[in-house]
Amino acid sequence: MGNDKKQVESITSMSEDFAQWYTDVVKNAELADYSSIKGCLIIRPYGYALWENMQRELDRMFKETGHENVYMPMFISESLLNKEKDHIEGFAPEVAWVTHGGETELEERLCVRPTSETLFCDHYANIVKSYKDLPKLYNQWCSVVRWEKTTRPFLRSREFLWQEGHTVHATAEEAREETIRMLNIYADFCKDFLALPVNKGRKTDKEKFAGAEETYSIEALMHDGKALQSGTSHYFGNGFAKAFNIQFLDKNNELQYVYETSWGVSTRLIGAVIMVHGDDFGLVLPPKLAPTQVIVIPIAQHKEGVIEKATEIKDRISKVARTKIDTTDKMPGWKFSEYEMRGVPIRVEIGPKDIENNQAVLVRRDTREKISVSLNNIEEEITKLLEVIHNDMYQKALKMKEELTRSATTFEEFNNLLNEPKPGFVKAMWCGEKECELDIKDKTGGVTSRCIGEIQEHLSDTCICCGKPAKYMVYWGRAY
Amino acid sequence: MGNDKKQVESITSMSEDFAQWYTDVVKNAELADYSSIKGCLIIRPYGYALWENMQRELDRMFKETGHENVYMPMFISESLLNKEKDHIEGFAPEVAWVTHGGETELEERLCVRPTSETLFCDHYANIVKSYKDLPKLYNQWCSVVRWEKTTRPFLRSREFLWQEGHTVHATAEEAREETIRMLNIYADFCKDFLALPVNKGRKTDKEKFAGAEETYSIEALMHDGKALQSGTSHYFGNGFAKAFNIQFLDKNNELQYVYETSWGVSTRLIGAVIMVHGDDFGLVLPPKLAPTQVIVIPIAQHKEGVIEKATEIKDRISKVARTKIDTTDKMPGWKFSEYEMRGVPIRVEIGPKDIENNQAVLVRRDTREKISVSLNNIEEEITKLLEVIHNDMYQKALKMKEELTRSATTFEEFNNLLNEPKPGFVKAMWCGEKECELDIKDKTGGVTSRCIGEIQEHLSDTCICCGKPAKYMVYWGRAY
Repeated sequence: MGNDKKQVESITSMSEDFAQWYTDVVKNAELADYSSIKGCLIIRPYGYALWENMQRELDRMFKETGHENVYMPMFISESLLNKEKDHIEGFAPEVAWVTHGGETELEERLCVRPTSETLFCDHYANIVKSYKDLPKLYNQWCSVVRWEKTTRPFLRSREFLWQEGHTVHATAEEAREETIRMLNIYADFCKDFLALPVNKGRKTDKEKFAGAEETYSIEALMHDGKALQSGTSHYFGNGFAKAFNIQFLDKNNELQYVYETSWGVSTRLIGAVIMVHGDDFGLVLPPKLAPTQVIVIPIAQHKEGVIEKATEIKDRISKVARTKIDTTDKMPGWKFSEYEMRGVPIRVEIGPKDIENNQAVLVRRDTREKISVSLNNIEEEITKLLEVIHNDMYQKALKMKEELTRSATTFEEFNNLLNEPKPGFVKAMWCGEKECELDIKDKTGGVTSRCIGEIQEHLSDTCICCGKPAKYMVYWGRAY
Repeated sequence: MGNDKKQVESITSMSEDFAQWYTDVVKNAELADYSSIKGCLIIRPYGYALWENMQRELDRMFKETGHENVYMPMFISESLLNKEKDHIEGFAPEVAWVTHGGETELEERLCVRPTSETLFCDHYANIVKSYKDLPKLYNQWCSVVRWEKTTRPFLRSREFLWQEGHTVHATAEEAREETIRMLNIYADFCKDFLALPVNKGRKTDKEKFAGAEETYSIEALMHDGKALQSGTSHYFGNGFAKAFNIQFLDKNNELQYVYETSWGVSTRLIGAVIMVHGDDFGLVLPPKLAPTQVIVIPIAQHKEGVIEKATEIKDRISKVARTKIDTTDKMPGWKFSEYEMRGVPIRVEIGPKDIENNQAVLVRRDTREKISVSLNNIEEEITKLLEVIHNDMYQKALKMKEELTRSATTFEEFNNLLNEPKPGFVKAMWCGEKECELDIKDKTGGVTSRCIGEIQEHLSDTCICCGKPAKYMVYWGRAY
């Protein structure tokens, strides 16, 4: 117990200092470390394993819906980046510029990609000739660079890993369908794989992507009541197509511009998992994401037969779940808190008494509940429990999100809710004007529109800010 | 047949112009395209699928031998890069420098990683404290940048995709073992997955990696008799450990420096596959690498029941191999040459007569041989044939390598062999002096030592160049 306490004490409690708690979990669960370059993260093996698991599942979902992976250069010439006016205005302030190759100054500066619309457009202009070439459904896994001023591990860094899908279509309708399809894939992935409930909706013009006609996002709610934009899907219309001259001959042999989409999620999702599911004992991983789903810990392992039996049980469970055993000479209490810190979904304790009784103790990470089960059918017990844990984690997170989602019809009420310690999402009506969004941000000290809810409710007739006729119900919040 | 001819004529023949043939295959098989940035490649879906298959298999082999993936930043500060003297001297002339973040000039220039020894060392210095922390067996999949003057798709580009393993160990012996283990994994992967025979050996001091004590490489021989360095594994001793102060407390509680290795292969392996296995009809893919292993082509598909039967056969074969069917309205001859260009290992032709006779025709891509098989057990026939194709491709490539590997004991003989149209590998004795290597390069117009063969033969007593006592048998060649 002494060791156990020590381990647990080394992280700050959530309620005391949420930001410090977050940093402690990232560090103590060995997810990431700082590098000597400000804002550039080292993703350590345990953190990278989370990203690999996310990649594997998302990649499967992308390929199942007809997408293909490609790799574009990491550099974009200044002239190429400049081709679409809104896009360059959005990104110019935050790109890193390469000016020299070896000892030689380059004739034209190259930026390290902050996103790759311009590269994909340039390529599509070369390879798309006919309606028979459409649609092109490309995706790439890569890292991108945005020269942010303030950075936090996984949430905002100067370099981060992501995937970016870029598709071109013959019609606006088809491109719009793709935009929504990918938004739904992201939401389904969050629910089914990460046990994360999200709000889906469209971004306001102020918040949309530089160069997009429409941006959709999934927004998750963290334990501290702040919102995290966790994925975006953009409909570009044919704006980029015109800037880059991506044309094709349609069935009537007439030249048409393509319609385009892009969509992405990043290692930011690791931050979401930490801040939605984590607790004062550390990380809590949803079973499908967990690199190790079951950790077997022998009790009184010096006693005859304990390690052998525990190993046998580990081998059996390995057939149904990603399982490890810890037979190091550390105290069981130390091991308990170590694997709790790392968020392993199920701990299996097995000691001499358990062996005598032909049983083992399963400890759930999410609830820390202990359950004695017979060794006879431990594989089925584990399979069932992993499923139960996933569902319970999702329901718990959903309940938190619902409890922290409130409505307001007066500005005072709105402002009060969003100034509570846990601001959550506040639903309120909006006139559609950018001025009101800026005004709200100003008056509340930083509240932003998260999205125009996919499901619209009529809360009142007038805008929460200006009192003019309301157009949309918007989810407002304080965002990471 | 008209269409067939047209397709085939569009690539240059190997014997006429090997370099142009290579470029034609890369372009016509849609492996890659040029981007608007000189020396930076766009890897298209078919090319990227090859890389994904290589990655999957190598990653499995790395993990099976205890390696873990991480992700390091893409930027290295100038001061960090400068820490190991030989290393910076080797890389400084060819790195790309970032000087601005947004509008602001950086206080210190950052280079885009040409390789990540310095980053891993910096991290290891932070996390390695005790012998209990060792070994650390890390790998990362990423892209790197080297500002090359002349570039060729997959073989030499300013940005390329690769994996780089970086490991630290408590003893020199263990690090040496790791160096050789990884060299063997690369050679096994080339043989078992890519059907590529390679020479294994140690690099001379002149050719070794900047900062390494010893560099080992696998060297493959291309169809034109030129050598391609296809993978390297480096033993660093404790040179980097001293420069970066990576120390640990050993079992006697004494501070020791770690011993280090690094090893890597890249998308260059795609170039090797093209140039070893390809022919005048295009790409020839080894079955395990091929994204599509079997292409089913219905003949006279307008006739009743043909498409249905062909689809049924495709579904059955899909259970044992990656299989597609082409039911587009293009002529069969066009389809034949299209999938030959793309190197699909087996083509299955099935038409009304075949259906009547309960058979199909299998066409091997490697030999273009046609085989009639019964539909009853077509799954087993395909499984067997894929295995046979892999083995035959390896044997064919091995035979080519062996025929193009000759010995020389006089300089005249040596020079003559290496000035033949297909220079191949020439085995010759060497005194061990850098001066002789430089002399040989000069006198032969570019011949370099490829490696000091793993298996040493005693061809003569004296160096091929200076006549002094010989130390090693070296494989010499003209390299990409």
